[in-house]
Amino acid sequence: MIHRIPPGTRDVLPDEMRELRALSETLRHEFEAAGYGEVWTPALEYEEVLQRGDERLAGAGFRVLDAQGDLLQLRSDATIPIARMVSTRYEDAPVPLRFCYLAHAYRAHEAAGQPAEFLQAGIELMGLEAPAGDAEVVVLVIRALEAAGLRRHKLGIGDGDLYRTLLRELEVPEEERLPLLEQLARRNLVGVEMAIEKLGMSRAAHDLLVTLPTLRGGPEVLDRADGPVARAVDNLRGCYELLAEQGVADRVILDLGLLRELGYYTGAVFEVYDPAVGFALGGGGRYDDLLGRFGRALPACGVALDVQRLHLAQTAEEREGA
Amino acid sequence: MIHRIPPGTRDVLPDEMRELRALSETLRHEFEAAGYGEVWTPALEYEEVLQRGDERLAGAGFRVLDAQGDLLQLRSDATIPIARMVSTRYEDAPVPLRFCYLAHAYRAHEAAGQPAEFLQAGIELMGLEAPAGDAEVVVLVIRALEAAGLRRHKLGIGDGDLYRTLLRELEVPEEERLPLLEQLARRNLVGVEMAIEKLGMSRAAHDLLVTLPTLRGGPEVLDRADGPVARAVDNLRGCYELLAEQGVADRVILDLGLLRELGYYTGAVFEVYDPAVGFALGGGGRYDDLLGRFGRALPACGVALDVQRLHLAQTAEEREGA
Repeated sequence: MIHRIPPGTRDVLPDEMRELRALSETLRHEFEAAGYGEVWTPALEYEEVLQRGDERLAGAGFRVLDAQGDLLQLRSDATIPIARMVSTRYEDAPVPLRFCYLAHAYRAHEAAGQPAEFLQAGIELMGLEAPAGDAEVVVLVIRALEAAGLRRHKLGIGDGDLYRTLLRELEVPEEERLPLLEQLARRNLVGVEMAIEKLGMSRAAHDLLVTLPTLRGGPEVLDRADGPVARAVDNLRGCYELLAEQGVADRVILDLGLLRELGYYTGAVFEVYDPAVGFALGGGGRYDDLLGRFGRALPACGVALDVQRLHLAQTAEEREGA
Repeated sequence: MIHRIPPGTRDVLPDEMRELRALSETLRHEFEAAGYGEVWTPALEYEEVLQRGDERLAGAGFRVLDAQGDLLQLRSDATIPIARMVSTRYEDAPVPLRFCYLAHAYRAHEAAGQPAEFLQAGIELMGLEAPAGDAEVVVLVIRALEAAGLRRHKLGIGDGDLYRTLLRELEVPEEERLPLLEQLARRNLVGVEMAIEKLGMSRAAHDLLVTLPTLRGGPEVLDRADGPVARAVDNLRGCYELLAEQGVADRVILDLGLLRELGYYTGAVFEVYDPAVGFALGGGGRYDDLLGRFGRALPACGVALDVQRLHLAQTAEEREGA
């Protein structure tokens, strides 16, 4: 007898659960050993509080009406609730603050096939500027994935503000910018190029807009991007140098077309890959404006890993004998 | 700057979280070592599916409307979702089935002060009859709490059907029964007595109805209850003997007034206490009719522990130097 469960959710049976639990415990131990203390925030938050963090993100959640008639939402990520918590509970605490979490997040989707409930293991580092903070987070994520048994994982690093800056500097009309950024966030480079054609820019501007998102590789890609995006490129260079010093440069792909969908990133953005599977295992970035919206302005960055996807990558690596 | 969170929810900061995590990991290890495999069911379920398990319980949850317009609920306990899962995913599996879980449950309250989100660590044993199944669950819970460092915990055992049977056998009018059971579930013995006075029963029936819920202690209390409730008393005696054989009789209180609020219990009911704190640390019981409602009829019983409350008891015991 089959009783349906909501689309995008699943039952996890003991054999799989044992592996997911081992994986999340490994990540949690690595994070805690690096000084990132685990926190728990409620799965339910007031919608108005989440909206203070990011209006677009807040719309992605399941909405819940409580007994008092207030509108709540299931958290759709952990970063906004932790930012909320820091302003309330760490108002005067010395920085940097380091937190980790192991919690499910929830997203409501119109279309089927997307996960509605997913287990995230993540870290947040608050009070440390770029590039030192970015590098600390990236190194920890790479090391934690090694501890979890991955051997082929890579971490893409881009800048969430780079293309936005470029569009502004090249004086692309404001109403054209958001659609372009959305195409880019979806990695639709053909769509990006078509939209740029329509703008009727100068040859040089056109080429810069089309080429920049395709630059991907080692530190040499940074030499091909400057001018209007020099600040972002300088920051990426600084971050890369710190990563090279710590011996993880071979795990890093600089990716100037990388743009995470979430609206609150202000600098470096990260995406975690494994060649054994065709999807990102997690991501994150720098969000220097978010904490200020809740009352304690601090530079910050973080990464969330999707434990379920990590597990699939682990299994795929083992199958390949990698 | 304070941003409110929903009533009954809380942020857990690293110092406390470390202890809660250690506690839940200890419980999980004990459960798994005893052959109870951890499972995860979605936090969101269709309301109609939860209602199949228990109409009253289903009403206790937060309601969520999904993007397809279907009515979902946050799970308000783990037992009904696991019963749902067993019928779907373990349709022909050999019994007994043993599962454990570590998951939050959610209850919506009209009044403030009640927890809306609470972390449960629990076990479910399916396919083993009373009293053997009851005793296995009780012993495991007592041992797991010992492993978690508790020294003074006790487990109350009653029978969820005993008073209902008594009311029926004594021919108490049907419309009077539910209010009486509700008073008893709230442990309002004065209210119970007042309601019984109004019934105008014979002296013998009146005394039985008033005395039975006050019987609490060792196996001697069973000698004082028989007649209409002989079946329940036999079962409790059988369970107690198995517990005595396994050396945990000193942890057990037989309690004929114990009646858990949840509607699906059909036999033994359990409640976990610690004299260091004034609230139950968890509870459970036998629910032989629940699985059949989902399609695979199996006798079953289980216990859920409230990890947060266990932690308070742990701390209180340490403070007392127990």
